[in-house]
Amino acid sequence: MKSERYKKGWDKLQEIYGAAGENVIHTLQDIAPDFADVLVEFPFGDIYSRDGLDLKSREIATLAALTTLGTAIPQLKIHVHGALNVGCTKQEIIEIMMQMAVYAGFPAALNGLFAAKDVFDEWDAENT
Amino acid sequence: MKSERYKKGWDKLQEIYGAAGENVIHTLQDIAPDFADVLVEFPFGDIYSRDGLDLKSREIATLAALTTLGTAIPQLKIHVHGALNVGCTKQEIIEIMMQMAVYAGFPAALNGLFAAKDVFDEWDAENT
Amino acid sequence: MKSERYKKGWDKLQEIYGAAGENVIHTLQDIAPDFADVLVEFPFGDIYSRDGLDLKSREIATLAALTTLGTAIPQLKIHVHGALNVGCTKQEIIEIMMQMAVYAGFPAALNGLFAAKDVFDEWDAENT
Amino acid sequence: MKSERYKKGWDKLQEIYGAAGENVIHTLQDIAPDFADVLVEFPFGDIYSRDGLDLKSREIATLAALTTLGTAIPQLKIHVHGALNVGCTKQEIIEIMMQMAVYAGFPAALNGLFAAKDVFDEWDAENT
Amino acid sequence: MKSERYKKGWDKLQEIYGAAGENVIHTLQDIAPDFADVLVEFPFGDIYSRDGLDLKSREIATLAALTTLGTAIPQLKIHVHGALNVGCTKQEIIEIMMQMAVYAGFPAALNGLFAAKDVFDEWDAENT
Amino acid sequence: MKSERYKKGWDKLQEIYGAAGENVIHTLQDIAPDFADVLVEFPFGDIYSRDGLDLKSREIATLAALTTLGTAIPQLKIHVHGALNVGCTKQEIIEIMMQMAVYAGFPAALNGLFAAKDVFDEWDAENT
Repeated sequence: MKSERYKKGWDKLQEIYGAAGENVIHTLQDIAPDFADVLVEFPFGDIYSRDGLDLKSREIATLAALTTLGTAIPQLKIHVHGALNVGCTKQEIIEIMMQMAVYAGFPAALNGLFAAKDVFDEWDAENT
Repeated sequence: MKSERYKKGWDKLQEIYGAAGENVIHTLQDIAPDFADVLVEFPFGDIYSRDGLDLKSREIATLAALTTLGTAIPQLKIHVHGALNVGCTKQEIIEIMMQMAVYAGFPAALNGLFAAKDVFDEWDAENT
Repeated sequence: MKSERYKKGWDKLQEIYGAAGENVIHTLQDIAPDFADVLVEFPFGDIYSRDGLDLKSREIATLAALTTLGTAIPQLKIHVHGALNVGCTKQEIIEIMMQMAVYAGFPAALNGLFAAKDVFDEWDAENT
Repeated sequence: MKSERYKKGWDKLQEIYGAAGENVIHTLQDIAPDFADVLVEFPFGDIYSRDGLDLKSREIATLAALTTLGTAIPQLKIHVHGALNVGCTKQEIIEIMMQMAVYAGFPAALNGLFAAKDVFDEWDAENT
Repeated sequence: MKSERYKKGWDKLQEIYGAAGENVIHTLQDIAPDFADVLVEFPFGDIYSRDGLDLKSREIATLAALTTLGTAIPQLKIHVHGALNVGCTKQEIIEIMMQMAVYAGFPAALNGLFAAKDVFDEWDAENT
Repeated sequence: MKSERYKKGWDKLQEIYGAAGENVIHTLQDIAPDFADVLVEFPFGDIYSRDGLDLKSREIATLAALTTLGTAIPQLKIHVHGALNVGCTKQEIIEIMMQMAVYAGFPAALNGLFAAKDVFDEWDAENT
């Protein structure tokens, strides 16, 4: 039986990412089902569910972090989707990535922008 | 004579960081005066001055990026100061750093929190 | 009241690091007490307490990760201490850091070795 | 004529990785044959051949380092193979990657787990 | 109307990369046209156009940086092309990447060499 | 008795860094004497001693790599010294670090410039 943290995390995951979040969890069932639980419980049950910072600001921080890392393009795309879901505009997302040129360099910003473009195209196809 | 971009950047730098921003510029005069100009013109004249993302959100993104990098503690401290200046609460800054544990690991989050604590102590001393 | 995960995590933290682990937790009480809880619960309650990998192997993995990051020298020192506590020899720790020259470069290996030397000196002082 | 270090390194490379290691060396012959030699001589002749840390522990350290880097998925896969060859269980490998969520963040752990899954599938196909 | 910095940057971009540089700019028009301008103006108008370091040395520095990052393979390939355009020999490029094994680790050097090989093959096809 | 590679590496180390290089080697004698040997043999005996790239270009590549990493300030300072020894001008070193703002971000460039300033001050004191 799943814990309270799991249930809280699962609801938050659904709220932010919808089906895209569920897919990551399902992909993990085969290889590391305990990690699927941990991923719901810690980031989403313990962190994103906290008061003190609104969800839109949380997604802005995450987009900045993932664009800076440069090693997490699949995760960045899921979070671009999540950012749109919680109310970021496309222009705001582009501004975040342009700003990352200052802190993480132009290649990081470029790769972030190209990832965002892929998600925007999917989003437009889904929403027309 | 300084360019329009420089003047726009300088005003933005003052608005966000106050004297702390000026200090970085002055420290560069000795070693690389052209880089002092570039630092005012590009990040502050070209990027932070843009519409499309409010200053508070820009500072949230920058705190996330610098905490993720882990190699820029002096710059992180200046931006914690800047974030407080443009309206972030201490709790919001702490939330951003806690969230970085998810994307950049616990040591990055810890070092971010310790840097924030140093700045909060200075801020409290200046504002009492 | 603290959760079961917290109690399990706290016991594991004590087992591996002794007083050094407690210090990190106490330092956080001032700035982010909730993060102190999270740090006990997730890494130590959820991960280090798992079966499937012995503690000595877990510390080997952590030393390798922290030496590779290069941004977490205070945390690396705590884990060198922890590695000695759970049965790594000094020579094994040195071998891990030498090996990191292959994957993370010579500067990472050098900085890891210098951190280890500091801890070995403390350890020898405490154990003579 | 190849050096003693080369011969020692080549034997160690074969012991750990089998044919997968040889392939990397052959791929380099076209572009940088001297680097193929250096790769056999230094990591395998000078480092992995040393006493003081057993091969299984060496592969644990390498899996942790490569999962942390996040920029070396092809090399990570070869080392997952190598880790299985020298006696790590699949569960131990999964534990290492789950633990990397603590130090390098969840995206690094996820990308490590997905790489491991690919290798486990190949390994099962080869060993049935 | 484009600025003087833009024109100077565009000429420098053409001088170093030819059509490959133009392609990056065009790809950005769709997603972030202002960033296309910024990319011409700051790196190429403000930095590469400066006296004080010859273009060949600038490309050596950039190849080293991008190989070290490991997160910018598309950009690394464009700069391998650029390095050949401004007079680096293939052997010099290979030497830079071999040397990166010392500072950024063997996986970074290997991935740099494989990227260089792809560009050398294209270059030979274009120049025969 | 030291190998031929060691002797070749030692001579190269002396040629580039003078006493500063020797100091690093001596510091390692206490903690990991075998790593002191490896550090002379591989980077300096195997790599820097190769033909195909002149020493000045090698130091340019290394300054770019270390500024990009941001985790190796002590090593960066030794290489700024080395770069001056093999014929780089101060202005060339400053240009490299300014250029790193493009690839690794402004904080990396700033920290590189501050490290360079420290070395330039020492250099001026030694050479007047």
